[in-house]
Parts: sequence; C-alpha cells; structure tokens
Amino acid sequence: MGHAINGAQSLVQTLVNCGVEVCFANPGTSEMHFVAALDSVSGLRPVLCLFEGVATGAADGFGRVAGKPAATLLHLGPGLANGLANLHNARRAASPIVNLVGDHATYHLQYDAPLASDIAGFARPVSSWLHEARSPGMVAGDTARAVQAARSAPGGIATLIIPADVAWDPASRPASKLDDIGPARVEAETIREVAALLGNGKKSALLLRGSALRGAGLEAAGRVQAKTGARLLCDTFAPHAELGAGRVPVERIPYFAEQIVLFLKDVEQLILVGSKPPVSFFAYPGKPSRGAPEGCAMIYLAEPHQDGAQALQDLADELGAPPQPAVSTQLVLPELPKGRLNSVSAAQVIAHYTPDHAIYAEEANTSGLPLMMHLARARPLTHLPLTGGSIGQGLPLAIGAALAAPDRKVVCPHGDGGAAYTLQALWTMARENLDITVVIYANRSYAILNIELQRVGVGSAGAKALSMLDLHNPEINWVQIASGLGVEASRASTAEEFADQYAAAMKQRGPRLIEAMI
Amino acid sequence: MGHAINGAQSLVQTLVNCGVEVCFANPGTSEMHFVAALDSVSGLRPVLCLFEGVATGAADGFGRVAGKPAATLLHLGPGLANGLANLHNARRAASPIVNLVGDHATYHLQYDAPLASDIAGFARPVSSWLHEARSPGMVAGDTARAVQAARSAPGGIATLIIPADVAWDPASRPASKLDDIGPARVEAETIREVAALLGNGKKSALLLRGSALRGAGLEAAGRVQAKTGARLLCDTFAPHAELGAGRVPVERIPYFAEQIVLFLKDVEQLILVGSKPPVSFFAYPGKPSRGAPEGCAMIYLAEPHQDGAQALQDLADELGAPPQPAVSTQLVLPELPKGRLNSVSAAQVIAHYTPDHAIYAEEANTSGLPLMMHLARARPLTHLPLTGGSIGQGLPLAIGAALAAPDRKVVCPHGDGGAAYTLQALWTMARENLDITVVIYANRSYAILNIELQRVGVGSAGAKALSMLDLHNPEINWVQIASGLGVEASRASTAEEFADQYAAAMKQRGPRLIEAMI
Repeated sequence: MGHAINGAQSLVQTLVNCGVEVCFANPGTSEMHFVAALDSVSGLRPVLCLFEGVATGAADGFGRVAGKPAATLLHLGPGLANGLANLHNARRAASPIVNLVGDHATYHLQYDAPLASDIAGFARPVSSWLHEARSPGMVAGDTARAVQAARSAPGGIATLIIPADVAWDPASRPASKLDDIGPARVEAETIREVAALLGNGKKSALLLRGSALRGAGLEAAGRVQAKTGARLLCDTFAPHAELGAGRVPVERIPYFAEQIVLFLKDVEQLILVGSKPPVSFFAYPGKPSRGAPEGCAMIYLAEPHQDGAQALQDLADELGAPPQPAVSTQLVLPELPKGRLNSVSAAQVIAHYTPDHAIYAEEANTSGLPLMMHLARARPLTHLPLTGGSIGQGLPLAIGAALAAPDRKVVCPHGDGGAAYTLQALWTMARENLDITVVIYANRSYAILNIELQRVGVGSAGAKALSMLDLHNPEINWVQIASGLGVEASRASTAEEFADQYAAAMKQRGPRLIEAMI
Repeated sequence: MGHAINGAQSLVQTLVNCGVEVCFANPGTSEMHFVAALDSVSGLRPVLCLFEGVATGAADGFGRVAGKPAATLLHLGPGLANGLANLHNARRAASPIVNLVGDHATYHLQYDAPLASDIAGFARPVSSWLHEARSPGMVAGDTARAVQAARSAPGGIATLIIPADVAWDPASRPASKLDDIGPARVEAETIREVAALLGNGKKSALLLRGSALRGAGLEAAGRVQAKTGARLLCDTFAPHAELGAGRVPVERIPYFAEQIVLFLKDVEQLILVGSKPPVSFFAYPGKPSRGAPEGCAMIYLAEPHQDGAQALQDLADELGAPPQPAVSTQLVLPELPKGRLNSVSAAQVIAHYTPDHAIYAEEANTSGLPLMMHLARARPLTHLPLTGGSIGQGLPLAIGAALAAPDRKVVCPHGDGGAAYTLQALWTMARENLDITVVIYANRSYAILNIELQRVGVGSAGAKALSMLDLHNPEINWVQIASGLGVEASRASTAEEFADQYAAAMKQRGPRLIEAMI
C-alpha cells in the first residue's frame, strides 16, 4: 500500500482529507508531479494564476471568507518571492493559508543551479509555521501538520517546502486531518476583571477584531454596549468586518495619526478584543505613533489566539446585559447622483445598487473614505480591506472571496496605482468566470502620496518628486487592459454613466470591470 | 555645514558622487524625503515603475550593460518582496545594484504597524551586502559603502535599509566615492599550471563567463583556442555575451540534462574562467545533475571575483599563442521566410533585420533555441538572457539596457507566460520613450512545462494537469494590453506580416510591441 503512490499524490490526498478544496497555482518544473496528482486524486480544485502575487492574495481572500485555508502552489524561491507581498498582507489578516513551495530535488541542491535560493529565508518573515518535507515517508504527516498550523487560531501561513524528489518518490499513505487548535477560551477571572472595569465610571471603548466583528461576537459586543455605554471600535483595516443594515454599528478608527488622536481623545480605557493597541500607520515628524491618549489604560479581554466572540458573550452575561443589542444599523441608501463622477458620487452609486450580502474586496485608498461612510448604512455586506499596506491585494483578494462564496456578489473598488501591481488577476477572474465587479478609481495618481508628501514635512516638492507620484504619462487605459485579459470592461466619465454601468454589472453574473474616471 | 541637509539629501548626493546616475523607483510614504531630494540634489535620474519587479529587473539590465550600478528605491518589506524575484536573477547575473529600501522611522518599529516586516530577512537571500542605516550622521558613509559593495568584483546586490527618520533628520555632509574593489589578478603560478595542462594532450574546453565573454577577454580566449585547439564554451544563461559577426565564436551549453552530457562527453578537462562547473537546470528522475563526464577534471583559471579577461591574456601569452584568434564569426543573414509564423521563421526575420550592436534582453524560452542559432551568426550584438530562471525578467531588463545604452536598439523576444509576470514594464517603456522592440511569442502556453511534464516522468497527464500549463482560456490579447499601457502594438499572424512589422520597428525609435502568433 505504502508504495502504490508517490509523494505528490500522498500530499494532495492529505490536503483533501484535511478539508483543503482549492489550490491557487503557478507551477513550474519542480511541481509537475503535484500537478499530475491533481488528476489522480480527486477533490482539489486548481486555479491557475499568471503571477504568484495573485495566487497568494487569492488564498488570503479565500481564507478570510471561508474561514479555512486554501493552498497555494509556488515555484521555488523566486515563485515564493513573487507571492510574499500578499502573504505579508495575509499575515496581517491572520488568514489561514497552506503555502506550498516546490524545490529542487534534495540531492540537486548541492550544485547551486540557477533557480536555487534560500527558500526558507524568503518564507520566514511571513510564515507562522515553516517546514521542509525531507522524506516521502513523512510528507503526508508534514502536510497534515501544515494544515493544522494554518488553521490554528487566529489563522496563519503554514509554509511547506517540497523537494521534487519527495514528490516523485514512492510515499507513505495519505494522512487524516489532525485536531484543530481552536481559539482558547478566555479565563473567567479575566471576564470578571473586565466586567468590573466597565463599571468603574471611566469612558470605555472596545476595540474589536477577528471573530468579535462577526455574527455572534458582534451581537455580544452590542449587548455589552447596551449595558455599559462603551464605544465599539474597529481598526482602520480590520481584516473582516460585517457592516450595514441590521448589524451592530462599529466606529472605524481613522487613518492619519492626528485623526486617530482626536478620535480616541476621550477614551480612558480601551478594551482590546482580538486587537492590538492602535498605532499610526506611518510615523510623521513630530506626530505621535501611538493612537490612544497618554494614560489611557489598555486591557486585553481577548488576544488574537483567543476566542473573542465567546469572551464578549461571557462578558455580556457577566454584566447582566440585555439579550439583544440596543442599536442596529438602519438602512440608508443614497440617492443616485448626477453630473460629476468622483469618489463621492461613485460611492453613492455603489451603495445604491449593490445587493444584499455582497463581499467588498476593497483597496480604494484615497477614494475609500466616502465609500466606507455609505457602506456603514448600506445593505448588509462583508468588508475585506487591504490589511498590510502592500498595495495590489484587492484584485487577488476578490478571486479568493468569489471562490469561497460563489453565491454572493463580489465588488472590488480599487485604486489605479494598486491595481496595476497585480492586474494579471483579471485573467483568472475571466478564466474561472467569477462573479466580480471591479471598479477602478482612475485618478492617474498615487493620490495618497500627494497627501503624504506634504504630511511628512517636505516643504515644496519639485518637478522630479511630483513626477514620481503621477501616472498620467502615459495614461493607463483600463478598458483595453481588461479586454486584453478577457474581462468585459467599460469606462464611465459621469455619475450617470457609472450608475448605468454599475447597475448592469449588479444584474449580470461573471467578471466585469468599470473604469471610473474620477 | 553638517546640518544644512537632511539624510535623504546626503544619501542622494553621495549616490551621485559615487557615479550612480539612475534610480528605478516605486516610492511610498516612508521614501518621500528621498523623493523630495531628487530635486534639491541634481544628477540622479528617477525612473518610475508600476511594480517593484520592474524596478529591480531594470536595475539588473542597467548594471549588465553599463557595468556600474543603478539604484532602486523600494517601499519597506513588501516593496522589496515584490522586487526579490528579479533580484534573484540579478544575483545570478552578478549584476551591480544599489538596492535602497525605505523603512519606518526607527522609533516607530516597536509598534508593529501594518507595513512593518523583517526587511533584512527578505533581503538576505539576494544581497551580497546588507546594512541598515541607523544614523543620519552615518548615512552618507553607509551609502558610499553600499556603492562600493555593489561594484565589488564580480558585482553584487548591496541592500541599504533607510528608516524614514534617518532620511528626514539633519545629516552629515555627503561622502565621496570609495575605491573600487576590482577583480583580483590571477596568480602567475595558476596561469603556468593551466598552460601546462593545456599541453598535456587531453581534450580541453574553456567555460567562459563574465569578462571572459567580452572584448579583450573573448579575444584572448580565441588566441588560447588558436594555440591549443581547446573548445570555447559558455553557460546556457551566461549573463552577458557578445555574439555575431566578427566575434570569436563560443559554443553555448544546451539546456536539458541529457543534452549537456552529450555536449560535454568528450571533454577530459574543463577550464573554468569566471564560471562554475556545469549542472542541469533541474533534476530529473534517473538523470544526472552534473553536466561534465565522470572523471573530467575541473580546473579554475579564474573565479568569478577574479579578472578572467586578464587571466586569458596572461594564459595566451604564457602559451605563446598567436596575437589574434584563428576563428572569427562570418556574417550569415537568413533569407526572409514566407508563410507560417513560428519560432524558426520569427528568428529568421529578427536576425535578418536587427541592426548592428543591438542588445537582446531575451526571455524567449522554448522559442529561444532557433533564435540563438541565428544570432550566433548575425550582426554583432549583446545577449542578455534570463539568468536565474525566474520568469518575468525580460521586459524590465530591456528598460535598464535601453537606459544604459540609449544609442543602441534593444530587442526583447519574450515568451507570453513570462511576459505576463511583469507586463507593467511596458508603461515605463512608454513613459521614458525607450527604444525597445518587444516580440511576444504568443503560443498561449507555458510551453516549456508541456515538455517538462513528460521529462520528469509523469506518465499520462490528465485534464486538470494540462489545464495548468495552458493559457488559451481566455486568450491574452497583447496588442490591447500594450495599447492600454501606452505602447504602440500590432499583431503578426504570418511570416510576411511579422517581417513587415519588425522591419518597421527597426526603422523607428521608441517602444513598440509585436505579438507574434506562433
């Protein structure tokens, strides 16, 4: 039995046994046995990407929406390297990913062939778990451990390096799924301490992240608020948030350092539920890095590896909170705008037309502020932002979200500068006929940097400096690019045009791109 | 004086003082002071790229052609990560690159903001020199050392990490250029030993790389050949080779393991001049990794950090070789083909029309073999191949080559699968109006993998496996993509169409893309 299959087959069957259903792949020669095993073993859906950053970003989106890992399949060190930026974002999202990287045959490494590199070195900064499969006899167990590691609360990137000979040699039989290392329950003493603090008369806020922003966790946070009056907050880039009508409203911390300080200035104690203390995204000369006021107490109700949703329920019960939140978001749909198309009118159109339970893979950056204002009161939705600041995440993220939730509309509002990073994602959207509507905010600029250039204290910027932030020369034509990659596309120059095109996109299924000339 | 400038200005002026003229940039917030310094300091030309893999690949091309480093400017760990694959290729080319990576302010790192990561960890596998500038008082010296390290023989990637506060704080004055650490001269005893070996009657070959494949080095190799009858060889992917009419002909080692063995089977002693022992690119079950026969002696005439060109001249003199090579390549231009466009007819057209002293940034992969056969006897040219096996190098490489040699035509024959990796490069070609003709071999396939799938011993590939190698669904339209990124483009479906379009491209200046439907 043990020698009836090779390492690749044992690996793929173990992935399937462990509940991995999708593999985002950019294979090369060293992964050919894995590729062949996709047919001899059933149950793993391969999704081909034209660039590894698409594969890793898609795995992030899948993990955030499905709550369980997809696999990647990357080609040696350089293939991994191309996927690292979106693995960085995924790490910040605590997304579960089984990150598979092929390598040269074990005996070939000594020759330092051109594609050889320090794969583990590349992987270490993004991996919560890292292992090289050295034996076909253990590759099944290694794979089961990788899946377990990826699924361990709060979720992480488990990198498994697979030498080519481990994939092609006779191997042991596939392994079964290992027990999950689920989120740890917060101790009763912590619950009682936090409950007591919430009764001490100080101005309190709960900073929610992870399961605290979903379903029962968010409901429980609303109960705590109903009892104590504490503010409910979330990070600017909380990886997964449920927003819109019928949900408990949560205030989102603003982006810029001085805005954070104003936003939090009255908070005397901040209860962290799966989150870390708020901090400025960047440092600026003379501005604080910390967001909370001096003297604000930081109390951890639940750390990221703990069960924040359960802790909030336990806290609500300990407080004797009412069984339901006091506040629930009322639906407010904006009127359709007329005339000029800009980030405000685009946001109105999007909020107006997007159907219930859409998923937003959002990387709108400077255009995102009006969008988030409207989404807060729009039809119920799931919001997936750029978590780690590495632009080029939105398009791949949308792919993973669409595969994890094929019955939900995925909307991808994206800045043009970031979209250019991983535009190859459009091809996979077309290939898999994914129900994604991409909106490119075409302002022909790294707009955020025009703001930042002033904020970091550069006095007067010269021509060379400004040219580094400007994308007008030449102007990117997103309709041509999308068409060239197989995605139906159109350009909107007015609010009315955008409304017509967006409404049509919401009625159809399949990929669609709208270039919004803001 | 010391406090009149900030760290960024001191850094940029030091780069200029050290001979760095071009900076391939993808800046972000943490690099804004560097960007501002591009105006207050003159002499550094910034070239904006839409993706970091373009910036690093361009720096590689610049370094290979100019023989001195360009700088990159990358945005924290993720920006570096996006550039790593082409830095891997550059490392394999021993290209000089000053790799500048911005970071958070030193005091901001403790807060683990979303963009924070282990930058040094990402950089280590590709860097020959790695340093974090921790003080504005030392940033000038750090920069001068980085340039010196990049220029040290044979050339390497010097990564300098620049925290934002080091860039914005008052700094010491700019530094001057440090002495070059040039290639070391090979000792006379080694020259005598190798000369003696070449007279021992064994069948010898010289494996040339680096300066041994250029100008005086190549001429001296021809003299050694004239005296001893030794074969002259180069690696499949020698980073920089001078080919064509009037040059000493060099045999290129083939790609596949079994071909290498046949090619080298008669060699009894292999003299390594700046090269390493030949090895198969990948391992295959049951096939050898080493290229040279059992018992073939490996003799190092010059290691990569030594002066291979000088060693060959010294060897020729020691041998009493004639003053000129015996063999010089005769120009053989192919007839213009008719009818079907394929990799052979495309190669004939390219060799027929390309003018003298063109630079080929070549990533044609499966289509490269007929091309290289014709280029060997074409008008004199410089050949820059994919060195590290990480596809997506050719388009960026062409950018750097064009900037380093603005008076030479740059030709970029590229496989479609690899071109999709870094297609953003087209935008920079348009922005800088670079004289580059891109030929996309549109076979809608990772064609090499269809070969490799059989070669690694996979019996019968199934539908899922074959779909992972196929790019037909949807078909990429390179004319639309290039147009969308500002580059004039056309499609050729016959040999005649290709000839017309290619001939026109050779007559015009500026960027141009031809999609060759092979």
